[in-house]
Amino acid sequence: MTPIVSIIMGSTSDLPVMEKAADILNDFKIPFEMHALSAHRTPKEVEAFASEAAGRGIKVIIAGAGMAAHLAGVVAAMTPLPVIGVPLVSSLEGLDALLAMIQMPPGIPVATVALNGAMNAGILAVQMLALSDEELNRRFVAYKQNLAGKIVKANAELAKIKYEYKTN
Amino acid sequence: MTPIVSIIMGSTSDLPVMEKAADILNDFKIPFEMHALSAHRTPKEVEAFASEAAGRGIKVIIAGAGMAAHLAGVVAAMTPLPVIGVPLVSSLEGLDALLAMIQMPPGIPVATVALNGAMNAGILAVQMLALSDEELNRRFVAYKQNLAGKIVKANAELAKIKYEYKTN
Amino acid sequence: MTPIVSIIMGSTSDLPVMEKAADILNDFKIPFEMHALSAHRTPKEVEAFASEAAGRGIKVIIAGAGMAAHLAGVVAAMTPLPVIGVPLVSSLEGLDALLAMIQMPPGIPVATVALNGAMNAGILAVQMLALSDEELNRRFVAYKQNLAGKIVKANAELAKIKYEYKTN
Amino acid sequence: MTPIVSIIMGSTSDLPVMEKAADILNDFKIPFEMHALSAHRTPKEVEAFASEAAGRGIKVIIAGAGMAAHLAGVVAAMTPLPVIGVPLVSSLEGLDALLAMIQMPPGIPVATVALNGAMNAGILAVQMLALSDEELNRRFVAYKQNLAGKIVKANAELAKIKYEYKTN
Amino acid sequence: MTPIVSIIMGSTSDLPVMEKAADILNDFKIPFEMHALSAHRTPKEVEAFASEAAGRGIKVIIAGAGMAAHLAGVVAAMTPLPVIGVPLVSSLEGLDALLAMIQMPPGIPVATVALNGAMNAGILAVQMLALSDEELNRRFVAYKQNLAGKIVKANAELAKIKYEYKTN
Amino acid sequence: MTPIVSIIMGSTSDLPVMEKAADILNDFKIPFEMHALSAHRTPKEVEAFASEAAGRGIKVIIAGAGMAAHLAGVVAAMTPLPVIGVPLVSSLEGLDALLAMIQMPPGIPVATVALNGAMNAGILAVQMLALSDEELNRRFVAYKQNLAGKIVKANAELAKIKYEYKTN
Amino acid sequence: MTPIVSIIMGSTSDLPVMEKAADILNDFKIPFEMHALSAHRTPKEVEAFASEAAGRGIKVIIAGAGMAAHLAGVVAAMTPLPVIGVPLVSSLEGLDALLAMIQMPPGIPVATVALNGAMNAGILAVQMLALSDEELNRRFVAYKQNLAGKIVKANAELAKIKYEYKTN
Amino acid sequence: MTPIVSIIMGSTSDLPVMEKAADILNDFKIPFEMHALSAHRTPKEVEAFASEAAGRGIKVIIAGAGMAAHLAGVVAAMTPLPVIGVPLVSSLEGLDALLAMIQMPPGIPVATVALNGAMNAGILAVQMLALSDEELNRRFVAYKQNLAGKIVKANAELAKIKYEYKTN
Repeated sequence: MTPIVSIIMGSTSDLPVMEKAADILNDFKIPFEMHALSAHRTPKEVEAFASEAAGRGIKVIIAGAGMAAHLAGVVAAMTPLPVIGVPLVSSLEGLDALLAMIQMPPGIPVATVALNGAMNAGILAVQMLALSDEELNRRFVAYKQNLAGKIVKANAELAKIKYEYKTN
Repeated sequence: MTPIVSIIMGSTSDLPVMEKAADILNDFKIPFEMHALSAHRTPKEVEAFASEAAGRGIKVIIAGAGMAAHLAGVVAAMTPLPVIGVPLVSSLEGLDALLAMIQMPPGIPVATVALNGAMNAGILAVQMLALSDEELNRRFVAYKQNLAGKIVKANAELAKIKYEYKTN
Repeated sequence: MTPIVSIIMGSTSDLPVMEKAADILNDFKIPFEMHALSAHRTPKEVEAFASEAAGRGIKVIIAGAGMAAHLAGVVAAMTPLPVIGVPLVSSLEGLDALLAMIQMPPGIPVATVALNGAMNAGILAVQMLALSDEELNRRFVAYKQNLAGKIVKANAELAKIKYEYKTN
Repeated sequence: MTPIVSIIMGSTSDLPVMEKAADILNDFKIPFEMHALSAHRTPKEVEAFASEAAGRGIKVIIAGAGMAAHLAGVVAAMTPLPVIGVPLVSSLEGLDALLAMIQMPPGIPVATVALNGAMNAGILAVQMLALSDEELNRRFVAYKQNLAGKIVKANAELAKIKYEYKTN
Repeated sequence: MTPIVSIIMGSTSDLPVMEKAADILNDFKIPFEMHALSAHRTPKEVEAFASEAAGRGIKVIIAGAGMAAHLAGVVAAMTPLPVIGVPLVSSLEGLDALLAMIQMPPGIPVATVALNGAMNAGILAVQMLALSDEELNRRFVAYKQNLAGKIVKANAELAKIKYEYKTN
Repeated sequence: MTPIVSIIMGSTSDLPVMEKAADILNDFKIPFEMHALSAHRTPKEVEAFASEAAGRGIKVIIAGAGMAAHLAGVVAAMTPLPVIGVPLVSSLEGLDALLAMIQMPPGIPVATVALNGAMNAGILAVQMLALSDEELNRRFVAYKQNLAGKIVKANAELAKIKYEYKTN
Repeated sequence: MTPIVSIIMGSTSDLPVMEKAADILNDFKIPFEMHALSAHRTPKEVEAFASEAAGRGIKVIIAGAGMAAHLAGVVAAMTPLPVIGVPLVSSLEGLDALLAMIQMPPGIPVATVALNGAMNAGILAVQMLALSDEELNRRFVAYKQNLAGKIVKANAELAKIKYEYKTN
Repeated sequence: MTPIVSIIMGSTSDLPVMEKAADILNDFKIPFEMHALSAHRTPKEVEAFASEAAGRGIKVIIAGAGMAAHLAGVVAAMTPLPVIGVPLVSSLEGLDALLAMIQMPPGIPVATVALNGAMNAGILAVQMLALSDEELNRRFVAYKQNLAGKIVKANAELAKIKYEYKTN
């Protein structure tokens, strides 16, 4: 199947974090692709990727990068597609990547999520695609209800722990 | 026309920043609405708004908030729609609003843009809607080319300034 | 016994920190309960909890949360009871949780304590309850004197260590 | 009437911020007193104040301080009463006062509110006192509903502004 | 004369800061050019500029940018020339621009100077060029001695001020 | 009279802050001198100053500097005298000067005071000199008591203000 | 021998850091004492300590504390002696302790050293005492020369390492 | 061969980070030297080094330092040569070293690279030297192309990983 989401990252060492975005897309049966692309080390590949993505049928781009995290912004500059940015923590508690990614100038937004928040990047891509896909939207609504269910179950477990305290 | 984007903000005092999102939507002829809603002072109105937005035809929500900026996250928790967050600067250079908005837990993303970046929030909404609207997509591609044109023109002006230096 | 303090937290993984609040309440024989409740994943349960707490006899709520820590503020918005917030450290040295919790807008305070300061949250709850409970107040005054005693004893131990230095 | 809340601050120059706490207490007809007391310049007066406050009938202490904001913590060390801290902004965007006030060691909490958040400090004192004062509790519940009303009214105003955009 | 230093900046509004780099180059009679180029709004012009600069005879590039300051890094990725970065203050006290500019990945350095430090960027360019230009090197050594002279003169003035204090 | 304290600063523009140190020394009738000396622009003068200060009878050095504030540390490296550092605010809220001044390596301390805290630098110099000057010590003890007196007087003024609130 | 320096710390757990101050004093044969004293848990002992220290012959006080580090400031408020503060790292990379200690109000300085910089606190105490002790001054001058010697020796070792690189 | 680059660092413990600069210079066959020199512990050796470097044939100086990182700035003050600074991480996530190194006053730049970015410091030195060395320039252009090649290869590996997701 032709991928409609593209997950890009600065190096393969970012995969353990970024694959959480892939897991979500997989769960929602959204065809996707993954690429290692560096804004600084492979600028031409980045330009080729960004300027061709929409033409290939890509709808949403997810970009993970650390330090002076330019990848998401550089791609956003060269595509009309929405770009979701995942700031990766590698120095300064991730503050460098967060600010380098989110503080984009007027005209070129990057939809930034939490530090190392690749799972939420995947969910945000699902939400964007579900705007024009009824079936996907139904599955996403069910997914959100399931999230609540896990906490309600955790609460039930906590109720037992709590009891021990009271009887002390 | 039925609005398809909803711009919400904590108080009417946020309007001078948030209206830049409205300006963009207006430019792209996207019907929208604006509401003052406080996660802390009108929790019931927020809940009613968030749980009914999708049913009313809203596609994208833009939420601006400052300080302990909970509005975007609280709304995101109660709707399947994508929520774009605009952290507003009012204390600590806006660092409080930025972190309170972007650091969402797994499962509930907020697509956060730059500090006071309401214009980019509007653009991001346009990009999401353009995914399933060919005509809107065409207009957005034209808009991006226009952005470049302004800089190219600025560059021409700078070329004149530069000359003065050289002849000194 | 009917609980008069409610300790809530975003997930059961927060229990190792938050149980220090429970320990203090246990020591002072104050009946309490514990719940896992997420502002973002179980918003309806949070609303039910917050709007019913006062009616059930709860007097003080202690809420622990990390990252974009909205739980305490969201609950405070929906109850007249005092809400004590414990910012939990999980990213950015806890700065995100601290600012997301404490920077509440005028009208809706959260009584915030130190990062991971669940023990002090328990003590603050005791102080609030002791305002109208003479017996509890007496026990709390004794508790504070005991704190001093531990340091005085530590000082005596230090006096011995110090001696070794002098004789060098 | 005998004051039951004491508002203290490092110098009279803090009054423009701290009087917002006084305004709230005044609105709720809670008798209070105000003192200028410096942890560093009048340590003996601070000690006398803190050790005598409970005996004089004071129930809650609100302390505002800036920079290395020790006042709240020093008073909390010498009284069993709950102490509410207001970090005042005068340097480093107030980060110094915030951290110096909130990061108290186990055993001695300070219930810290937002930067310059004196109004919320007053509200928190009301909430503590309302725990054992039915009439005050009723008035506080009414106050919270009024807060929501102001936003609802602001929202109505915003609805008009919004219209202008759409017709453009 | 063919320019050998190129000063680039995100917009003409950066000129009041960046012209201090031009002033230094002018003082040292180094031919230079200035361009407004945006990494995000004119990515193609940036690419053309960066890949052609060395061929045109440019030796050093000075790039000023604010917020998510990608300009210097993006240019550095596409040229073998040394790139000097000037982080410009426009939000967060300039911390965003500083981190976005300096935290470059291994392989692609940006020689970053102080916040708004355009004058020093010009001096650094002079130092690089003086490595293979004896005459320029002589003028730069003289310039540094002159800097000291200004302080020595200031010191003499201070000696008079000081006197007034002593005689009090 | 031969000066026994030397106040140095990076440029005469620092005088409005640094003269508060001079005022204190003047009040205590301690002979002092002032110099403009830059660690970066007049390194030789700094070295001459630092290595000769003790021999000339200087007992304590007070150094004010901003940004990458090296002056105090560089002087401390070249004199056995205690060096008091005053970090001056000019960028980044003064955080750069504070960290550049205080984070000295083992072996070479700088006794750092608050941001722009030149008055306290003067007081600290007085305290050091009073260790071996009985008369100065007596005057300093009196000075501290006077500080308390000013607050006590402020408190009396506040008592009147407070009354207005109560009678409302 | 009667101690002339007093090293105080919030708890015995601070000893591994603070004993580096003791080591320096020991090396210089300066009689000292150590105490565990908490500004918050033993305020009366702190007051007794601070108000009696000068009378007992103490000349300099070194105070180590973490988090909302009030100990140094509280002691400084109650003694005319110079107080050296050592901010201890336990949360927020030590930024809380650093700001809580150094940002003292006008009138009450704390001579603050680097994070965990107990060794430098000891050296600073030596420098203050050496102002009126010729013999101690001589030993301190020798100590500084020895510091340089260690680096010179390290440099010699580095020269060998370097050689391997060159011959590659 | 006579060294033309000098790598200096505060102590031999900085070697594991700083040797990455040496590795790059070695790869490019640029003769270099390494020295341990401390701005604070060996100020005279630093002065001798800095004032003699240019005369000995050194072209570029690379200086690594942590905490209150003065080494690069102090050397820059005493040489006309370009000085590249590497802020080393040892406390406060390296923020102290970064600010102490980069925030130099007008007149004395330090070309600062990323935290622990010694490899990039080496590359920057190569870029400066290549300005007047055709052969070195050719090798550097080849090096940059090789960097891109590594990422392209990584991308090919990622393509395989991606496949597993799609077939799930």
